Amino acid sequence: LSGESAFIDSLRAMAHHPAARGLLDDAAVLEVGGEALVLTHDMLVEGVHFPSSADPADVAWKLVATNMSDLAAKGAEPLGVLLGFMLGEDQPAFATGLQEVLEHFGVALLGGDTVSGGPPRAFGLTAIGRAAYRPVPSRGGARPGDGLWLTGELGAAMLGFEALRDATGADSSAYRRPMARLFEGWALAPVVTAMMDVSDGLLLDAWRLTQASGVSLAIDGAAVPLATPAERRLDALRWGDDYELLFTLPAGAEPPVPATRIGRVEPSGFAPLFLDGEPIVNSAGLGYQHG
Amino acid sequence: LSGESAFIDSLRAMAHHPAARGLLDDAAVLEVGGEALVLTHDMLVEGVHFPSSADPADVAWKLVATNMSDLAAKGAEPLGVLLGFMLGEDQPAFATGLQEVLEHFGVALLGGDTVSGGPPRAFGLTAIGRAAYRPVPSRGGARPGDGLWLTGELGAAMLGFEALRDATGADSSAYRRPMARLFEGWALAPVVTAMMDVSDGLLLDAWRLTQASGVSLAIDGAAVPLATPAERRLDALRWGDDYELLFTLPAGAEPPVPATRIGRVEPSGFAPLFLDGEPIVNSAGLGYQHG
Repeated sequence: LSGESAFIDSLRAMAHHPAARGLLDDAAVLEVGGEALVLTHDMLVEGVHFPSSADPADVAWKLVATNMSDLAAKGAEPLGVLLGFMLGEDQPAFATGLQEVLEHFGVALLGGDTVSGGPPRAFGLTAIGRAAYRPVPSRGGARPGDGLWLTGELGAAMLGFEALRDATGADSSAYRRPMARLFEGWALAPVVTAMMDVSDGLLLDAWRLTQASGVSLAIDGAAVPLATPAERRLDALRWGDDYELLFTLPAGAEPPVPATRIGRVEPSGFAPLFLDGEPIVNSAGLGYQHG
Repeated sequence: LSGESAFIDSLRAMAHHPAARGLLDDAAVLEVGGEALVLTHDMLVEGVHFPSSADPADVAWKLVATNMSDLAAKGAEPLGVLLGFMLGEDQPAFATGLQEVLEHFGVALLGGDTVSGGPPRAFGLTAIGRAAYRPVPSRGGARPGDGLWLTGELGAAMLGFEALRDATGADSSAYRRPMARLFEGWALAPVVTAMMDVSDGLLLDAWRLTQASGVSLAIDGAAVPLATPAERRLDALRWGDDYELLFTLPAGAEPPVPATRIGRVEPSGFAPLFLDGEPIVNSAGLGYQHG
């Protein structure tokens, strides 16, 4: 889809403001009044990001949680959210889920917009946070020699998705009601050289980190903690929605929160990623295509 | 549509944060680091807010301009925008319009999200600004005895819409490429008792001001400057998209920018609005239903 890629490049080229760091899939950092504000905006579209049959309360939860995870990766404290809501039949359920997720994250609904439209319906959420530590962590700071680390384990969202899809009755909450590593992001911000959240799959997001930092990453697949049986390791590395934090630390440094060392940063080589020594030379297929 | 109204009320009830002033159709004010930040989010939906045949460059323009107008009503200087963009066939044209409108308003694209989806397509835009004057003007400060004022004239967007619809070849730029009164809002902020932009029609927006301020408004219809022939006065008072500023000033005060006194604030009476002495007792039909 080269047209889409050209469009996104044209948006990136427009974002020449010095405050704009990563674009368009990274949070923005804006210095105002002596504070570093972190701004993120995510959209969820019916039939693309959630099925029409999804519980509207879960859609509301995910809309907020994904943005909270973007703030977590910047070590930012959430200040508030703005909601773009397309009116429909399911408003009470959506409102219930929204209330739950706002209370969970202790974040305020500041405003937004309600519109008619759809199907398919689309929702947007903007989150604003205040960075606790500066410089604000970015994807661009990984240096050869750094260790590559991951909070938590991967694959729980995939299992939850499959439980829901196959109506097995197994716990699907990791998929429906993702958490965000706000505390861990806050604690890690002063010590990391680079940080991002794993929303689109470890391999695809690690690929993005290599592009932003101008390095290669060597990932030890067996070291990645899994919520799945070992035979599903490759699926779990490609699935998203786990919202763990991927970060780099100087060699020898230990993180202040529980995390696992899953690889190391290398000088930019002939491939951006090496998984158990095997080069990965393009990003196609690294992220799981959900649903 | 009582379900929609109940939903919006439930959102308003959630927005208990002291920083959240107006909701959800007003900009939010957030105090951070000694600055008052103003945050707005608007969505435009294909088939609802713009026809499928609209020039994508004009859609991009309107998406930004409507949010700039929300900032203008708060006397805020724009700092940046985040874009929620649904990918489609028309991306180069959209990017062109976006570049033009960002340059026109001198505002930075900070980030956002690009997603698949639609039709109908939906776009979202969040704008963040810094209020130049505090307290930040709100809709809630009008007091009996104040004068009611309006910048510019009404009806130009309506004429532009009709020129486009009827393919008359007449200038449609007021509808396609609305301006925002950023300078006027900045200059007015220190002197107004209440301020808002007229995006949904003078009568409907004036109604909202009465609800926020707990007052009635007496509007002198003949005093409202029109871009239309006089026989279309009532249409022009009900049409939106002109993005002028409606504000109140203490009796005897004169605004620092060109504006017209179109009425006065009265104690809350048996009707919120009086147009040339005639009471308007409910808000249905006050705003023109576009397209």
